[in-house]
Amino acid sequence: MEPVTAFVTNAPRGGVNKVRTEIEDDPGDLILKPVFTGICGTDRSIIAGSLSFPFNPPGSDYLVLGHEAICRVYDSQNSRYRVGDLVIPMVRRKGKCINCRMGRQDNCSDGDKREAGVTGKHGFMRELFPESSEYVVRVPDLGLEKVGVLTEPLKNVMKAFEVFDRISQRSYYPSDDYSMNGKNAWVIGTGSEGFLYSMMARERGFETYITNRHPIDENRLEILEKFGVNFMDYSKSPLESADNIDLLIDTSGDPSTVLRFASRLRHNGVLILFGTNEKAQSAPMSGSFIDHVVEKNISIVGSVDGAKMHYEQAISQLMKWHHSNGNSIESLITNIKTPENDNLFERRDVNNIKTVISWQ
Amino acid sequence: MEPVTAFVTNAPRGGVNKVRTEIEDDPGDLILKPVFTGICGTDRSIIAGSLSFPFNPPGSDYLVLGHEAICRVYDSQNSRYRVGDLVIPMVRRKGKCINCRMGRQDNCSDGDKREAGVTGKHGFMRELFPESSEYVVRVPDLGLEKVGVLTEPLKNVMKAFEVFDRISQRSYYPSDDYSMNGKNAWVIGTGSEGFLYSMMARERGFETYITNRHPIDENRLEILEKFGVNFMDYSKSPLESADNIDLLIDTSGDPSTVLRFASRLRHNGVLILFGTNEKAQSAPMSGSFIDHVVEKNISIVGSVDGAKMHYEQAISQLMKWHHSNGNSIESLITNIKTPENDNLFERRDVNNIKTVISWQ
Amino acid sequence: MEPVTAFVTNAPRGGVNKVRTEIEDDPGDLILKPVFTGICGTDRSIIAGSLSFPFNPPGSDYLVLGHEAICRVYDSQNSRYRVGDLVIPMVRRKGKCINCRMGRQDNCSDGDKREAGVTGKHGFMRELFPESSEYVVRVPDLGLEKVGVLTEPLKNVMKAFEVFDRISQRSYYPSDDYSMNGKNAWVIGTGSEGFLYSMMARERGFETYITNRHPIDENRLEILEKFGVNFMDYSKSPLESADNIDLLIDTSGDPSTVLRFASRLRHNGVLILFGTNEKAQSAPMSGSFIDHVVEKNISIVGSVDGAKMHYEQAISQLMKWHHSNGNSIESLITNIKTPENDNLFERRDVNNIKTVISWQ
Amino acid sequence: MEPVTAFVTNAPRGGVNKVRTEIEDDPGDLILKPVFTGICGTDRSIIAGSLSFPFNPPGSDYLVLGHEAICRVYDSQNSRYRVGDLVIPMVRRKGKCINCRMGRQDNCSDGDKREAGVTGKHGFMRELFPESSEYVVRVPDLGLEKVGVLTEPLKNVMKAFEVFDRISQRSYYPSDDYSMNGKNAWVIGTGSEGFLYSMMARERGFETYITNRHPIDENRLEILEKFGVNFMDYSKSPLESADNIDLLIDTSGDPSTVLRFASRLRHNGVLILFGTNEKAQSAPMSGSFIDHVVEKNISIVGSVDGAKMHYEQAISQLMKWHHSNGNSIESLITNIKTPENDNLFERRDVNNIKTVISWQ
Repeated sequence: MEPVTAFVTNAPRGGVNKVRTEIEDDPGDLILKPVFTGICGTDRSIIAGSLSFPFNPPGSDYLVLGHEAICRVYDSQNSRYRVGDLVIPMVRRKGKCINCRMGRQDNCSDGDKREAGVTGKHGFMRELFPESSEYVVRVPDLGLEKVGVLTEPLKNVMKAFEVFDRISQRSYYPSDDYSMNGKNAWVIGTGSEGFLYSMMARERGFETYITNRHPIDENRLEILEKFGVNFMDYSKSPLESADNIDLLIDTSGDPSTVLRFASRLRHNGVLILFGTNEKAQSAPMSGSFIDHVVEKNISIVGSVDGAKMHYEQAISQLMKWHHSNGNSIESLITNIKTPENDNLFERRDVNNIKTVISWQ
Repeated sequence: MEPVTAFVTNAPRGGVNKVRTEIEDDPGDLILKPVFTGICGTDRSIIAGSLSFPFNPPGSDYLVLGHEAICRVYDSQNSRYRVGDLVIPMVRRKGKCINCRMGRQDNCSDGDKREAGVTGKHGFMRELFPESSEYVVRVPDLGLEKVGVLTEPLKNVMKAFEVFDRISQRSYYPSDDYSMNGKNAWVIGTGSEGFLYSMMARERGFETYITNRHPIDENRLEILEKFGVNFMDYSKSPLESADNIDLLIDTSGDPSTVLRFASRLRHNGVLILFGTNEKAQSAPMSGSFIDHVVEKNISIVGSVDGAKMHYEQAISQLMKWHHSNGNSIESLITNIKTPENDNLFERRDVNNIKTVISWQ
Repeated sequence: MEPVTAFVTNAPRGGVNKVRTEIEDDPGDLILKPVFTGICGTDRSIIAGSLSFPFNPPGSDYLVLGHEAICRVYDSQNSRYRVGDLVIPMVRRKGKCINCRMGRQDNCSDGDKREAGVTGKHGFMRELFPESSEYVVRVPDLGLEKVGVLTEPLKNVMKAFEVFDRISQRSYYPSDDYSMNGKNAWVIGTGSEGFLYSMMARERGFETYITNRHPIDENRLEILEKFGVNFMDYSKSPLESADNIDLLIDTSGDPSTVLRFASRLRHNGVLILFGTNEKAQSAPMSGSFIDHVVEKNISIVGSVDGAKMHYEQAISQLMKWHHSNGNSIESLITNIKTPENDNLFERRDVNNIKTVISWQ
Repeated sequence: MEPVTAFVTNAPRGGVNKVRTEIEDDPGDLILKPVFTGICGTDRSIIAGSLSFPFNPPGSDYLVLGHEAICRVYDSQNSRYRVGDLVIPMVRRKGKCINCRMGRQDNCSDGDKREAGVTGKHGFMRELFPESSEYVVRVPDLGLEKVGVLTEPLKNVMKAFEVFDRISQRSYYPSDDYSMNGKNAWVIGTGSEGFLYSMMARERGFETYITNRHPIDENRLEILEKFGVNFMDYSKSPLESADNIDLLIDTSGDPSTVLRFASRLRHNGVLILFGTNEKAQSAPMSGSFIDHVVEKNISIVGSVDGAKMHYEQAISQLMKWHHSNGNSIESLITNIKTPENDNLFERRDVNNIKTVISWQ
């Protein structure tokens, strides 16, 4: 391929550079051109060099960043895709384990999968890149260019709810009318994943609360209100109000907060762990916490990434939200930059939700 | 009913007395006479007054002890049961929630179930007691009087494996030949529940290890060997040998031990929490432990009690073990006492496995 | 209640009358006023007296027709509902079996449920009726009055796909990329249920075909095209083109057609039986058909009605379709009548899809 | 390999010859020597040339018969197996589809698996044969040589009950006490598979009936009685007695019989199709039969073969029955022949259950 502009790091050491270079990459039957790429906490942590697991592709001394993207097909050698088609490239690439071979690299059994922009595979923050059609998901061309960039974060939510569906069936979980009326979901963390999890919990019929240890601005409160989600600043409110939790979702990775809320799970309650923060301070887990988990048949499940089906579900859900809640879903994208902007990867201010780069 | 000999406590204060008295109880279509009743850690803790949750039946100032029993029908007003039939009475009695109403009081949604010998319902350590046929499970009369008393503890194991079956299907869990060959199960704790869990894990095809922080005697090692279960004293062996755990079962309730072993779970691994110890010392849960649970799609599930189907499965399993492993299963019952013995409820010595009272 | 205009029959004898009368009914905490009520084949068959199972409410010599409706709250004694709220009333009412008690009267274990407008409970084709909030589902007030009347037929589809999800997991069902790409769904019958099933199969990612033994008009073809569904007139096309079916859904109830297509199911294929036609001609089932079902691990499942959760999913799906496919979903409603129109219940012409009555 | 005595056919033409020859076969890390091989209806049909699907291994003009065997390891190049170990060789060999690759060749997605003694792979009716340890299942050496030959037919039953477990969970299936008390299972056909299915249904707690259109002899009645299974000659008894079926299992493959009993399935009932008979006469399937399946949420599922886990479960179950029901399970083997006997494959007389060949 010819030289392209790209944002690269040197994993796991960190740093970020905008370069213009020829990039050696796996071949593919498609060439994709990003419309938007999203920036998330993982990107910032890679740049900060605070994660241990990212690594450059074999034989490369750099890694192209970016794992959230919506693209148009720029060139195609596959009759099912035409130039101009709108697609989402997937993050994870199959290893050799049985889960990978069945398309469930999100459940990789041995850790040998690859992740674009993170572990051993160049990411999407570049003008053009080759891609295999095996790893792209089609987006209907109905004005979703902007919200479509949320497909990648939302597919994590879809996979987590797949896990929830399976786990929660270990007993009879819903209300007596086989709905979630009267069931309470709490989501810890008010970043973009926290927002998406809370919106989806509400969509599933839960009375839904999102919480953090600081207030959030009017803009965010308004979005939550449009989606029927309640907010609680738990540094202010006594935690007693967070009683009777049936579904708890953590996007913070903070042990102390997780344990505080988890001790309020009801019988047959489910805790989904999604957020990670290796550097977070430890918190004491007590014998009575274990007792609580045992006696109430509580389930605590880690969930990471998602499969192709979850990307498809995410696109479908975004299409619904795009129309049905005014332009609330668009409001999650609080910041649109271009590759020419400086300080693209600076820590978002606390009231920012999602920053994206426009490549058009 | 006429006066009977019974072992009673005053819950939750504790203590134990052998009394001879008329006992007011719920009516039933059967009168049962215990053949054997088992003594377990819960009984000893109730007597010690170290548990907060036990309570006397409404209107009673005492609680008959005992939730593990095998009985013969002494009198029957139900045509399906004849005098002399061998049966197991169930521990939990239905409350009003939907799980209880479907016979899943082991998954009670609101905590309103009752437990014979523990919470608000007289137990089985008495010469005779009325029972409803709804709560008894039949035992084929094939020489199982003695091992049959293990039905109650084993039904917990059967329920836990039902939970395991459901939870583990969130991804592809078995080996590539759809067996558990090459999968490792570790069981923490060498009490009778630990033994039963490890024997069942082996039965399921796992390479199975049982572990504790002290050595165990020859008798116990021999039983384990007959069942193909390995023992490790983890106070001696470096924990590195406990690598690559696919299924971890805890019967200790000790946070520090649980976290140490849980950090060695493989991708898609499952931790079943069964043991409880409210007074155990807290242990620090770190951010990297949460990261481990998330990135590897690990599931941690509490499991308590079991349903009628699990009692039936336990009886069937005991019948198999009774014959197929010499008299190894009988060897789990290390101590047979009579109601006349003193110090029945004294803390078992460390190499005792299961003490039972013979009522014949 | 005061006299209201209503469409009534005398079940199971049949006939239909518009009456103005006081109707004795179960009390409820809400009074509902229909916006639209749908007319379906069941209604026409009840009127024709060709079904054996409909019956009048106990003590009544007539039955108010109608089980598809979208209503506004006219009066409320329940603080969760306000006058003017948009709601869907459910068809089935709980009996005493365990499935009913858990809100799954769609899976009633003993046939003792009631169905509004069909079996023993007055239906919705009347100006006003009392309703219990237990049996209503809320609709967001976003312009769904018209398509909302499709909630009732679509909830059947949602339940059927719940069944499909569970059944299909008896083996590994999807394509190797864990999507339905390359999987074929065929839907027999081009009535409104056939349309909704085919649209949902496409939504799930199947290459989808709808089929009938006669051509359909331009209007219908256009709707199908907008939803990406293919049509085949199987009286014209050789059946060979219907090869390699992974999911077959029948809305016709015709044994001969069902068996013809079912013999083309692939390994692990699923046949959902939804349509019924008691009077349809029998068709010969051969030994080699049974052989085909056995050797290929094929599943054939009846599915009827749906639970509250399926109504909620249907509403959500209608909201998505309402916006994302132009006004295609609206086009399914081909005929809007008023209670004043004559011949409301006449057999729809072959190119009609759904007739509704506007009560405003 | 050196010349061995073997029973061969020429598939699909049929016939049977005892030959002594060198057999070209896939290599393996084990050499196995049969202890017993079972003869079943499939073997007889292959010999009769009445099946269309059997075929010789590629490049071979004959096929060694036999797919039911219990063997001892005769030579081993695998450290996990020692000479003399008791093992069961599996029937099906992996093809390339995803189900095969995960060890579920019983659920093969494309028909490309191989079956020893049936389709393209030499079977077990020979003195010695090479085998891959991937396809053998270990049997504890506890006197199971004879009943162990039932592992292969019983593994089919175990897989069918796995399917049942999954399918039946589409609604709440058990009785209100979460047991199968009060649930009725009917098994059509009194061959060895019929016996094994009925014994397993009883083991699962069903009130169980086995049925055929002719009487059975005292010997068979006695075996059934020991296992608590009822017999009905449906040519004599009015079918009304077969009311309220919750689980129906067919081992006959006869459409007329299947439809007669299936029309008596209760709500949420399950029909497992296992038997096949391509030549059986067709029977009329009516519109009201489809109506019955739909309105009662009935499931009809084909089930064939089983995975390694089902072989393991079968061995475990045989161990239990071996001891717990006197020698009833041994009584299923009504006929022990040697390779020297004439007319080994003659149609069993109607009261024979299972014929085996002893190779010792």
